[in-house]
Amino acid sequence: MSFLDRIRGPQDLRDLDGRELERLAEEIRGTLIHAVSRTGGHLGPNLGVVELTIALHRVFDSPNDPIVFDVGHQAYVHKMLTGRTGDLPTLRQRGGMAGYPSRAESPHDWVENSHASAGLSWAEGMAKGFRLRGEDRTVVAVVGDGALTGGMAWEAMNNISADPDLPLIIVANDNGRSYTPTVGGIAQALGAVRTDRRYEDVLDLVRRSISGTPWIGRTAYEWLHGMKAGLKDVLAPQGLFADLDMKYVGPIDGHDIGAVEQALQQAKGFGGPVIVHVRTQKGRGFKAAEDHVEDQFHSIGQIDAVTGAPLSSKTTQSWTSVFADAMLDLGRRRADVVAVTAAMLYPTGLHRFADEFPERTFDVGIAEQHAVTSAAGLASAGLHPVVAIYSTFLNRAFDQLLMDVALHRQGVTFVLDRAGITGPDGPSHHGMWDTSIAGLVPGLSLWAPRDAVRLTGALEAAAEIADAPTMIRFPRGGVPEELPAVEQHEGMDVLVRGADARVLVVAYGPMCRVATEVASRLTDQGIGTTVIDPVRALPVNRALITEAARHDLVISIEDGGEVGGLGSRLAQELRRAGVTVPLREFGIPQQFHDHASRDELLEDCGLNPQEIARYAVEAISSSDSDPVAPLR
Amino acid sequence: MSFLDRIRGPQDLRDLDGRELERLAEEIRGTLIHAVSRTGGHLGPNLGVVELTIALHRVFDSPNDPIVFDVGHQAYVHKMLTGRTGDLPTLRQRGGMAGYPSRAESPHDWVENSHASAGLSWAEGMAKGFRLRGEDRTVVAVVGDGALTGGMAWEAMNNISADPDLPLIIVANDNGRSYTPTVGGIAQALGAVRTDRRYEDVLDLVRRSISGTPWIGRTAYEWLHGMKAGLKDVLAPQGLFADLDMKYVGPIDGHDIGAVEQALQQAKGFGGPVIVHVRTQKGRGFKAAEDHVEDQFHSIGQIDAVTGAPLSSKTTQSWTSVFADAMLDLGRRRADVVAVTAAMLYPTGLHRFADEFPERTFDVGIAEQHAVTSAAGLASAGLHPVVAIYSTFLNRAFDQLLMDVALHRQGVTFVLDRAGITGPDGPSHHGMWDTSIAGLVPGLSLWAPRDAVRLTGALEAAAEIADAPTMIRFPRGGVPEELPAVEQHEGMDVLVRGADARVLVVAYGPMCRVATEVASRLTDQGIGTTVIDPVRALPVNRALITEAARHDLVISIEDGGEVGGLGSRLAQELRRAGVTVPLREFGIPQQFHDHASRDELLEDCGLNPQEIARYAVEAISSSDSDPVAPLR
Repeated sequence: MSFLDRIRGPQDLRDLDGRELERLAEEIRGTLIHAVSRTGGHLGPNLGVVELTIALHRVFDSPNDPIVFDVGHQAYVHKMLTGRTGDLPTLRQRGGMAGYPSRAESPHDWVENSHASAGLSWAEGMAKGFRLRGEDRTVVAVVGDGALTGGMAWEAMNNISADPDLPLIIVANDNGRSYTPTVGGIAQALGAVRTDRRYEDVLDLVRRSISGTPWIGRTAYEWLHGMKAGLKDVLAPQGLFADLDMKYVGPIDGHDIGAVEQALQQAKGFGGPVIVHVRTQKGRGFKAAEDHVEDQFHSIGQIDAVTGAPLSSKTTQSWTSVFADAMLDLGRRRADVVAVTAAMLYPTGLHRFADEFPERTFDVGIAEQHAVTSAAGLASAGLHPVVAIYSTFLNRAFDQLLMDVALHRQGVTFVLDRAGITGPDGPSHHGMWDTSIAGLVPGLSLWAPRDAVRLTGALEAAAEIADAPTMIRFPRGGVPEELPAVEQHEGMDVLVRGADARVLVVAYGPMCRVATEVASRLTDQGIGTTVIDPVRALPVNRALITEAARHDLVISIEDGGEVGGLGSRLAQELRRAGVTVPLREFGIPQQFHDHASRDELLEDCGLNPQEIARYAVEAISSSDSDPVAPLR
Repeated sequence: MSFLDRIRGPQDLRDLDGRELERLAEEIRGTLIHAVSRTGGHLGPNLGVVELTIALHRVFDSPNDPIVFDVGHQAYVHKMLTGRTGDLPTLRQRGGMAGYPSRAESPHDWVENSHASAGLSWAEGMAKGFRLRGEDRTVVAVVGDGALTGGMAWEAMNNISADPDLPLIIVANDNGRSYTPTVGGIAQALGAVRTDRRYEDVLDLVRRSISGTPWIGRTAYEWLHGMKAGLKDVLAPQGLFADLDMKYVGPIDGHDIGAVEQALQQAKGFGGPVIVHVRTQKGRGFKAAEDHVEDQFHSIGQIDAVTGAPLSSKTTQSWTSVFADAMLDLGRRRADVVAVTAAMLYPTGLHRFADEFPERTFDVGIAEQHAVTSAAGLASAGLHPVVAIYSTFLNRAFDQLLMDVALHRQGVTFVLDRAGITGPDGPSHHGMWDTSIAGLVPGLSLWAPRDAVRLTGALEAAAEIADAPTMIRFPRGGVPEELPAVEQHEGMDVLVRGADARVLVVAYGPMCRVATEVASRLTDQGIGTTVIDPVRALPVNRALITEAARHDLVISIEDGGEVGGLGSRLAQELRRAGVTVPLREFGIPQQFHDHASRDELLEDCGLNPQEIARYAVEAISSSDSDPVAPLR
């Protein structure tokens, strides 16, 4: 029986000795590589936190002491140590283990955090709450160094540092992407001194050593204060925590379980907020990951568990790569086009533009608010920024989109990848809010291209708009074959123009394919159907209202939230125009949707030709048999 | 002729000598006090920046060098120096001068910033843009110390500090609310040394002075780095900028025009990002303001220009004070209720709860994202947080509301003051997005109480909800008289139940009063009318659908954006239920609305009984004369 097999919960870790723990770590790595190479998932980050997670569960009493992961994709090891190793083969699959912490899975999962930089705020709130209730618990937040670029983390830090008794430990999981690799044993020793309250003695020593310098002699107090910051800066090479008067331990070798445990014990004993700076290596123990320059297998599909080579050779071109090509081409033709992203250079395909135009590319870190307002600034200086991020992360910058871009009528193009149902990342990653938001922002145009040609065209058109924001959205995955228009009509593409059409189907993006399939089915049943891709989905094209009035039923199909979006807006415009043709919108039900494949979830949402066609047939036939009865 | 009369633009400032500038400052103060005491507005902040603004316009070449105010309510003096003194008496009035920078008013107004902490991102984007275009301009951002608590400011700082050649000057306008009053001449002298490139020499001096200390001898480089941070900390007492490797000048006496000019000149000459730390006094030169403990007349109504006493003695109770009472009462009865706000303790009335329950009150600073997620944390620790902020600022935390509160099913009550049309603060302050957002958030309940009794009841009901967010909204101003229900029906209040009712009017909040007036007018014309306040506006009460089906026309009236909100959601639910009764929603048109009084703007939006009743009469009579024709 392996060590891992014996771990049914954190308590089973307590009796293992150092060598056994190392062995356990090795088994965890092996199991992770074996399982995640088959399921896909966030392999690199989890290989980096094996020892750290073991130490956390030995020192703290989860779930009484909550451990909050920011972000939660580094929680696989935590799941294994809390009785879920057996579920690993179902990772990110329908009904299987979630790729993020999940409160439905385990009481050890307090926060399902997956939008970065929120973990400290969660932990701060929890720690204040427990203290107020008189409960003696310590809250631990494990924060990746990348997450610290988000402003929210600083808002939390600002509050935490003002509360010197808060039982909160911040583990800064530094996997080497933001820090320079310096500082050795002396700093670790100092770290120990620091938290066991001999810190002030060290400061005295420092004060004595510098008090002879004449021009600072009179201001010893200020210098002492300054030296504190200085000390911190020595310990944390980038000075990240230097402006916060917070206790600090580190940097610690995050792969030395004993060292991490010792640091965590010290921090726990301190009783106030402490930062434990742990250095880890992403992809640790899997050579292919360690050597992977781009992101150490941050997030992978299916791979060979030995070589790390991808197993599925993608034959279709992805939406992302079509955008990458189009953006590069646009950049070559227009010197005023610049690219902005928030730590998403590779995932959005912008790296290709960045390679050729580094001076015109701005990756601001995980900082969506700044990305959007900075883009407004770039636009007001006469450039045309293209902001490329995942759809779900635009929610972070709703206010900036509204106040800085739209109110100021700045020409900024937002390219939203992973729009609509995304799949295995679950509820926080479905890009189902963008279309609803789009309808709320005055002046904004929404484009959801249905194929590669239209994506390229949309980007071209958006870059021409100098006085309003434009949103271009497309989903995760492969771009479908070109779907030509049979007719173009006041800016809209008619995809199907059936004879004596009674049903109008309006759709955008990949849902156009669903719409044409609905039309085929209806035509087979003798119901003439028109299919229109409005091309620019919002604001509603007036010509669409005229078209709608010529039909007996309007159906909208969209891969976005059913509240707001095209269907809802079209219905509103029809009401305003006094057009009483019944409309039924098909979209993503306005609730949180679990992880599963995109196809499975689209099926769940009823976004498939069979169900939509069945509805239309029934609606039309019931209307024929009883013209007075309302369509349902 | 006064000096102020001679200033038609910044160029007219250039030839004045020191004494004349002081005289000008005095005239500006007198004019400000005279005018703003009559119009109301942000008097305190502007009295604090008179000398600073004069210096800015002498050193920089506006509008070629953009000056960005964060936030823009400190731009009155800027407006006076750019040819708009004559418009001051029309401040914040319909068609008059805006209370924030306005691009329609002047090319000197680049950014209409009024949501705090965005200014640095604007300035960073602009500076990058101009540099890329080869234009030699300096961008100046004037940032209040309060705005620096916002995470967005740190996201910007993080990017600015990584760009050492960016021609960007950050004026930290420190009006003493965040900094301790320390540090004198030595720091100013050091500031001068710092920016004229002798800074490295100082560092050498420091390095020599400490290199003898044995335990740091080997790591001189790290210490040097640490000392840099130390130096900064001495200069900026709170260490605010200590973790950023940015040049710093200050603190400067912000009321000494010469000193400020000198600092700005130094900063301008440096060529890279520089922080100029200016200490100013809010309310400066107006004794009543200086002595006003609460906020130095941050924002006032009409006052006596000599004594500062408020002129209008409010006779009606405000919504804010009703909430303050209800919150205090709730807090006394429920020990688990805690209050959270984002630098809005007084404006939301939470200070009364804070006075009695300081340990249960959390003011996190201007940091809405943290406020909301911290509240989720408090809720998960078993408390019931009430987050009180202005409606418009919730947009800053849309993602946190969605991901941290709603997805995690945390019982958090959001109390949104200044909801709907607010009035003189203009487009960025109308709380017209909350109802639309409410419809997008799974599980969220929206309550918009119509009178004081219902506000108290709503708070009570919301605090009982432990597994979902609740939003309670009310407008600025006085609470109307109680409007009793004639009948209660499945949770809804029937306010009017006319005989043979053909029209159903659905409304919430203060729009209920408009609805009953519509009913009176329709009844006068022989059209029976039902008026319902759904009490809980969202999600749509099923009973409302049944009610709607019994009428010939449904009208919804809401003081929120017409896209989304109750009208739009009710229409959607009616479609789903197959109820074909025509519906017409009256709400705030989905566009940005200028400043004016609340009543004027509601009139503009068509939210008045006359227009709505007229629509209903026409719709009903056209339907009677031609039953087939659609209602428009």
